[in-house]
Amino acid sequence: MPRGAVRVDLNISLDGYATTTDQTPENPFGHDWGRLVGAYTATRTFRARVLGDTSGAGTTGVDEAYAEAYFEEVGAEIMGAGMFGLHDHGDDPDWRGWWGENPPFHVPVFVLTHTPHPTLEMEGGTTFRFVDTDIEHALELAHEAAGGKDVRIGGGPTTVRQFLAAGLVDRLHVAIAPILLGRGIRLWDDLRGLEAGYDVVAETADSGTIHLTFRRE
Amino acid sequence: MPRGAVRVDLNISLDGYATTTDQTPENPFGHDWGRLVGAYTATRTFRARVLGDTSGAGTTGVDEAYAEAYFEEVGAEIMGAGMFGLHDHGDDPDWRGWWGENPPFHVPVFVLTHTPHPTLEMEGGTTFRFVDTDIEHALELAHEAAGGKDVRIGGGPTTVRQFLAAGLVDRLHVAIAPILLGRGIRLWDDLRGLEAGYDVVAETADSGTIHLTFRRE
Ligand SMILES: NC(=O)c1ccc[n+]([C@@H]2O[C@H](COP(=O)([O-])OP(=O)(O)OC[C@H]3O[C@@H](n4cnc5c(N)ncnc54)[C@H](OP(=O)(O)O)[C@@H]3O)[C@@H](O)[C@H]2O)c1
Ligand SMILES: NC(=O)c1ccc[n+]([C@@H]2O[C@H](COP(=O)([O-])OP(=O)(O)OC[C@H]3O[C@@H](n4cnc5c(N)ncnc54)[C@H](OP(=O)(O)O)[C@@H]3O)[C@@H](O)[C@H]2O)c1
Repeated sequence: MPRGAVRVDLNISLDGYATTTDQTPENPFGHDWGRLVGAYTATRTFRARVLGDTSGAGTTGVDEAYAEAYFEEVGAEIMGAGMFGLHDHGDDPDWRGWWGENPPFHVPVFVLTHTPHPTLEMEGGTTFRFVDTDIEHALELAHEAAGGKDVRIGGGPTTVRQFLAAGLVDRLHVAIAPILLGRGIRLWDDLRGLEAGYDVVAETADSGTIHLTFRRE
Repeated sequence: MPRGAVRVDLNISLDGYATTTDQTPENPFGHDWGRLVGAYTATRTFRARVLGDTSGAGTTGVDEAYAEAYFEEVGAEIMGAGMFGLHDHGDDPDWRGWWGENPPFHVPVFVLTHTPHPTLEMEGGTTFRFVDTDIEHALELAHEAAGGKDVRIGGGPTTVRQFLAAGLVDRLHVAIAPILLGRGIRLWDDLRGLEAGYDVVAETADSGTIHLTFRRE
């Protein structure tokens, strides 16, 4: 079976941060998270696909075009333990991810972690499988599960950077918010020369977001 | 006398580096420098204003529009010892900067340095004065010398970052080259929240360069 592409979509700040650091118990996402991903969560597609808002509300234009593309043809996802929430909620045996009982993935998700964890069958086709293996093998599993569709490396930056450094990513899309976060985990560290072998295209949205796409030549 | 604006124009990589690290005795600028500033040095304005090429050759379009704006109305410049070359050539008593006898500034230039150095009177109106003082006072001197025109903080990143952190910059334009340098000195370090009080606008050029402008609201 032919394999789909390996894709990444991330929201980063101008100074390259893909994580925020101002979470509090009262505000578990923090103020910065809204500023980092706000242009994406305002789109019509995000509202419909993730929030279940079928009213048609939400922004259109360049941000919306990228949000639509985000959901195209993904057959499996890989994410790190941090993105799944194990670094914050690993002690809670009932933790089932940030996304509720019907997560927006709707495909098999492979969570990279060094800690064994039982598989979670969620509603709507999402399954979380926890794997302790190298990234090449994780990708193998994801390609098989994707049945020829694309595989997304969902995040966080620590995981994405490993796949980028190993040359395993066919398409990287970053939505750069015009803000400086000043701290967190940077996507771009130690990726000198990444652009070799990619076409790089940038496009700006009315929201001020810069959409940058690295596409394998 | 009314004061001009304080402006910065820099070329940075996607990962925020404003300096390159691959200089060799044979290639004193290094290969990366050409990749970092190539879209700018290819413009018609750079060729005419800096290389003295009056043939009209060079790129036009978005990169050229920013290159033209670069030379508008600057009455004095401030730069760091690193940009002037004192960190590489400080031992050479005959060092007169990288730019030859007729540097492209054509205005008084204040070079920040802790090491005393005699003033250099160059051709074409450029004077290099070496000052050991805080940035606020250096700006005072530059505003006086500029006679109401704008003051440019020319670079390098260590100097620019000080002026940005102190809130002294009215307009910051960065031309972001779609490359990852992976090492050097980053412009964006420790500037969390810089965007507050600025309008931020991004525009992309055919060269792949992203022109980002922070303008005081
Ligand atoms: N900006 C965005 O678009 C975006 C998208 C997604 C997520 N995020 C953010 O990213 C943050 C999490 O990112 P992060 O970089 O801290 O962590 P992460 O990449 O999600 O997870 C890294 C962790 O995954 C495990 N891991 C990675 N590779 C492995 C391998 N080959 N084998 C076994 N385990 C492996 C390790 O966890 P253990 O050793 O602990 O098991 C490692 O510490 C969250 O705050 C989230 O909000 C941002
Ligand atoms: N990408 C671009 O657009 C661009 C533009 C310009 C330059 N550059 C690059 O930037 C590099 C140099 O940048 P850099 O960040 O290393 O150095 P820099 O900012 O040019 O100079 C920093 C130095 O200036 C002196 N200095 C700064 N503030 C001072 C003060 N208040 N009082 C006295 N001295 C002060 C100190 O030197 P001392 O203590 O040693 O005297 C300090 O180490 C060069 O490689 C150049 O190619 C890039």
